[in-house]
Order: sequence, then structure tokens, then C-alpha cells
Amino acid sequence: MNNIKPLGDRVVIKKLEAEEKTKSGIVLPTQAKEQPQMAQVVAIGPGGMVDGKEVKMEVTVGDKVIFSKYAGTEVKYDGIEYTILKQSDILAIVE
Amino acid sequence: MNNIKPLGDRVVIKKLEAEEKTKSGIVLPTQAKEQPQMAQVVAIGPGGMVDGKEVKMEVTVGDKVIFSKYAGTEVKYDGIEYTILKQSDILAIVE
Amino acid sequence: MNNIKPLGDRVVIKKLEAEEKTKSGIVLPTQAKEQPQMAQVVAIGPGGMVDGKEVKMEVTVGDKVIFSKYAGTEVKYDGIEYTILKQSDILAIVE
Amino acid sequence: MNNIKPLGDRVVIKKLEAEEKTKSGIVLPTQAKEQPQMAQVVAIGPGGMVDGKEVKMEVTVGDKVIFSKYAGTEVKYDGIEYTILKQSDILAIVE
Amino acid sequence: MNNIKPLGDRVVIKKLEAEEKTKSGIVLPTQAKEQPQMAQVVAIGPGGMVDGKEVKMEVTVGDKVIFSKYAGTEVKYDGIEYTILKQSDILAIVE
Amino acid sequence: MNNIKPLGDRVVIKKLEAEEKTKSGIVLPTQAKEQPQMAQVVAIGPGGMVDGKEVKMEVTVGDKVIFSKYAGTEVKYDGIEYTILKQSDILAIVE
Amino acid sequence: MNNIKPLGDRVVIKKLEAEEKTKSGIVLPTQAKEQPQMAQVVAIGPGGMVDGKEVKMEVTVGDKVIFSKYAGTEVKYDGIEYTILKQSDILAIVE
Repeated sequence: MNNIKPLGDRVVIKKLEAEEKTKSGIVLPTQAKEQPQMAQVVAIGPGGMVDGKEVKMEVTVGDKVIFSKYAGTEVKYDGIEYTILKQSDILAIVE
Repeated sequence: MNNIKPLGDRVVIKKLEAEEKTKSGIVLPTQAKEQPQMAQVVAIGPGGMVDGKEVKMEVTVGDKVIFSKYAGTEVKYDGIEYTILKQSDILAIVE
Repeated sequence: MNNIKPLGDRVVIKKLEAEEKTKSGIVLPTQAKEQPQMAQVVAIGPGGMVDGKEVKMEVTVGDKVIFSKYAGTEVKYDGIEYTILKQSDILAIVE
Repeated sequence: MNNIKPLGDRVVIKKLEAEEKTKSGIVLPTQAKEQPQMAQVVAIGPGGMVDGKEVKMEVTVGDKVIFSKYAGTEVKYDGIEYTILKQSDILAIVE
Repeated sequence: MNNIKPLGDRVVIKKLEAEEKTKSGIVLPTQAKEQPQMAQVVAIGPGGMVDGKEVKMEVTVGDKVIFSKYAGTEVKYDGIEYTILKQSDILAIVE
Repeated sequence: MNNIKPLGDRVVIKKLEAEEKTKSGIVLPTQAKEQPQMAQVVAIGPGGMVDGKEVKMEVTVGDKVIFSKYAGTEVKYDGIEYTILKQSDILAIVE
Repeated sequence: MNNIKPLGDRVVIKKLEAEEKTKSGIVLPTQAKEQPQMAQVVAIGPGGMVDGKEVKMEVTVGDKVIFSKYAGTEVKYDGIEYTILKQSDILAIVE
């Protein structure tokens, strides 16, 4: 997925299906207030100066991550849905 | 399109028609909350100090970009519609 | 129009009439959410430290500019209407 | 009017009557959204560090200024009404 | 009144009665939107770093000051009412 | 009370009963808008860098302080109620 | 619990059951406005530059902490509920 190049500290992620989540240890929301989601990182921005602050990218393409459902913008590319969000909206990497 | 010179970190973009989007891989919004759009960059500001922060322009004239529909200001010039927005409202470059 | 000296990063502009807009390439708003306007710069502040940030003036007296209709304060001086706004509310220079 | 010493970047101004405005070129509001006013500066604070930012006073006692009507606090002293406001609420000096 | 030691840039003031105001030149509010008050400073904090910013105390115990009525917290100590507020909520010193 | 160690610039306080307040000079709220309270400091955080700003602790265990009633979080520990709040929510030390 | 690696200054905590709380000195909320909770830290982020500010991690895996109930995001992993929150949402360590 080299076709979308996020700017700054943005990251493109692809949500994991339920079966994929089960394989890597199930991470599911337990209440509605801020629903987390699991996804895989498919592209990352270069980081650097973002809004006057130095940002170092901490996630890598291929990482499985937990992010807040309401963060970012959803786009469809070649029939597949992605989300573009800022790295700071990623809560944790799941290994 | 050398007639509109954006100030600071602003960028002038021209929305791509549906057929153009299809050619370059379709990027379509999948939900209404924040509708992304594809557009082509037609003019960029000089960057530099903007609101007390150093901004480096990362997009170039000709780039195809994804931006949030509600960002920026729409203007019509010689019968063509453009949007003037800040570079930080551009989510990603599509190649 | 040397009688009004804007402070800091403020700029005094005089809106262009419709016929004037037509001559220099028509720039017209295409939707109501944030109506842009064309105007001519008639006086500029000195720039410098504004709210703790160094601001360099990028517009010059005589420039034709696009600005957001709802920005700034309108004043009438010797029967002519002007708008006083911050340079950051000017979107672009039209040449 | 040496009896009120404004702190920091504050300025004490005295509104000009309509006849005074007429003499110095009429500056009148043209719409209700943010009514500008003409006034004369009667006392200025020392400037310096204000809210962590260095502020240099740009107005002088005696200057005629345009300010936003809703800015500042009105006080009456020895029967005369004054307004105490921050220098950043002064839009321009009229000469 | 050495018993209350304000922290940071806070100041303890005691409101002046109407007769006291008259003696030192009357300062009275002229409209309800933000009612100013006259008071006497009875204790001041040490200033220094407050919320990451260096604050120098500009008022002294004994100063008569104008402050905004809605600023600060009112307390009663040994039967006398005081207000604890930040120095930045003091508009001016009256001499 | 060495069992609760506040983080950063947080402070643990224990409210003083009315009789205790009377003994040390009564401090009582005089209006409902922001009710102050007297309390004794029982534990303090280490200060240092908090939200990117250097904070020096100015209160000490044992200090009697005035704080705003609505600040902080109340907890019960071994049957005694405490409040955990930031030092900046403490208005003054009473001696 | 090495499978969830929080980013930046985030911390993964596991709520303590009532009986556990009792053993280590009961910490219970006393009013509804902001309900504190006791939990045990199970994973911590690396700290470092977070939103342009240097953050040093002050909690350690195994610490019992008090945090605000409404902070963070709840996730379920291998059938156990965790909360991912920023270190600044932890009020105190209980020893």
C-alpha cells in the first residue's frame, strides 16, 4: 500500500476483522463511551515538525495497534477501507 | 494558475472529478462524519513562520491529495472552483 | 489613506466592487459557509512581536487580496467603508 | 489623568464625542456585529512581560484610536467615563 | 493582615466602602456587563514561575486597585470579607 | 499519612472541621459562586516537570490552606476523607 | 502482560476488586462528581517527547494507583478488562 503517503504525523491503518483480532488476542471495547478498535498500520508519515513540535514516529508499517474508533478520517481505496489518523490517536501497539 | 498566491502555509487545490478519481485509484468517503475529498494542488504558499511556528511545505503543485471536505474556503476564479486551505488540513498525498 | 495606522499585524482593506472583481478575474464565493471577498490593501501595521510571536508583513499597500467575509471590523472613514483585520485572516494575494 | 495607572499592557481611554469624531474624520460602525469606537488614550501601562510574553506599548497618551466597543471595562472617575482595555484590543491609531 | 499568604501570583484585597471610594476619587461601574470594584491590597503572593511563566508582582500592600467584580474567590476572615484573585485580574492602581 | 503519594504537582489535603477553623481564625465562604474551604496538607507530590512546565512545590505537609471547593477529587482512605488536587488550586496558606 | 505496549506517556492499568482494595487500605469515592478508582499498573509507555513536552514516567509496573474513573479507554484482552490512560490522569500512588 505505497499509494497513500500521509503527511506529518499521520498514519494510515486498516481495521482488523473479528477473526484476525481473535488470533492475536481479542481486544474488544467494553463500554460505548470511546470504542477502541484494532487495526494494522499500512503507511506512516515522515513525522518531523508538526504544528511546531518535533514528532518521532513510533509505529511501523505492519504493527497491530489499538486506536479510538472516533479518531481520524475513513477513506476507501481500490475497494478497501482505511482510516487516516494522527499517531497520537493510537493508544498502544499489540504484539 | 499563477494568479492566486496563498499566504503562509495555505494551499490552493482544485477538486478532482469522479472520473479522474477513478483513474488514480478511487478514494471515496465511507461515512458522513468527515467526508474526505481528492483534489489536485494548484498553488502553494511560501510556508515559513506561521502563527509563531516554522512550517515547511510538504506538498507540491500537481500533487493529488486527500483533504477533509469541511476544511478551507471555496472560491471561484475564471469560472473554476478552487479551495484555499491550510497544508495541515491535507491528510495525505496519493501517488 | 495614511490616516488610519493599524497596530501590530492588522491590515486595513477596502472591498472591491463587482466590476473591479470582474476585471481582475472574478473571485466569488460558491457556498455560504465562509464567504470570501476580494479587497485592496490600503494600510498595513508594522508587524513585529504580536501576542508573543514574530509576525512579518507579507502583504503590501495596493495588493488585491481574498479574505474571509466574517473576519475583522468594518469602519467608515470620510464616507468610505474599510475593514480592519489581522493579516492571518487574508487567505491569498490575487495578481 | 495621572490617577489611574493601568497594569501590564492595559490602556485607559476616553471615548470621543460625535462632534470630535467628525472633526478628525468620521469613523463610524457600519454594522452591529462588532461596533468600533473612537477614543483618546489617557493612560498606558508599562508593558513588559504580560502572560509570559514581552509586550511593547505602541500607543501613546493623546493618541486617537479605534477600538472594539465590547472590549474592556468601563469605569467612572470624577464624573468622567473611561474604558480600561488591553492594547491588543486597540485596532488602529487615527491621525 | 499577615495571616493569609497567597500562593504564586495571587493577591488578597479588601473592598473599599462607598465613602472610602468617594474620598479617593469615585470609581463606579457604568454598566452591568463587567462591574469593576475598588479595593485595597492587603497581601500579595511571591510571584515567580506561575503556570510556566515568570510573573513579577506589580502591586504592593496598601495599593488601591480596580478589579473586575467577578474575578477571584471571596473569603471571610475574623469577620472581614476579602477576595483572593490573580494579579492579572487587577486592571489598574488608583493613586 | 505516608500511604498516598501524589504524582507531579498534586497535593493531598484533609478538610478542617468547623471548630478547627474557628480556632485558627474563621475562613468561610461568603457567596455560593466558588466556595472556598480550609484544609490541612497531608501529602505533596514531588513537583518538577508537569505538563512541560517546571513546578516548585510551595506548600508543606501540615500547612493550613484555602482551596476552591470544586477543585480536585475526593477519596476515602481508612475511613477518612481526603481531597487530591493540583497545587495551583490552592489559593493561600493560612498562618 | 507484555502484549500491549502503550505509546508515549500512556499507561495500561487493571482495576482492583473491592476485596483487594480493602486489603491495601480502602480508597473509595465519596461523591459522584469525579469517581476515583484504584488499579494496578500492568504496562507503561516509554515517555519521552509527548505533544512537544518531555514526559518522564513516574509510575512502575506493579504500582497501585488512584485514577479518575472517566479517564482513558477500556479494552478487554484475553477476557480481562484493562484501561489505557495517560500518566497525567493518575492522581497518586498508594503504598
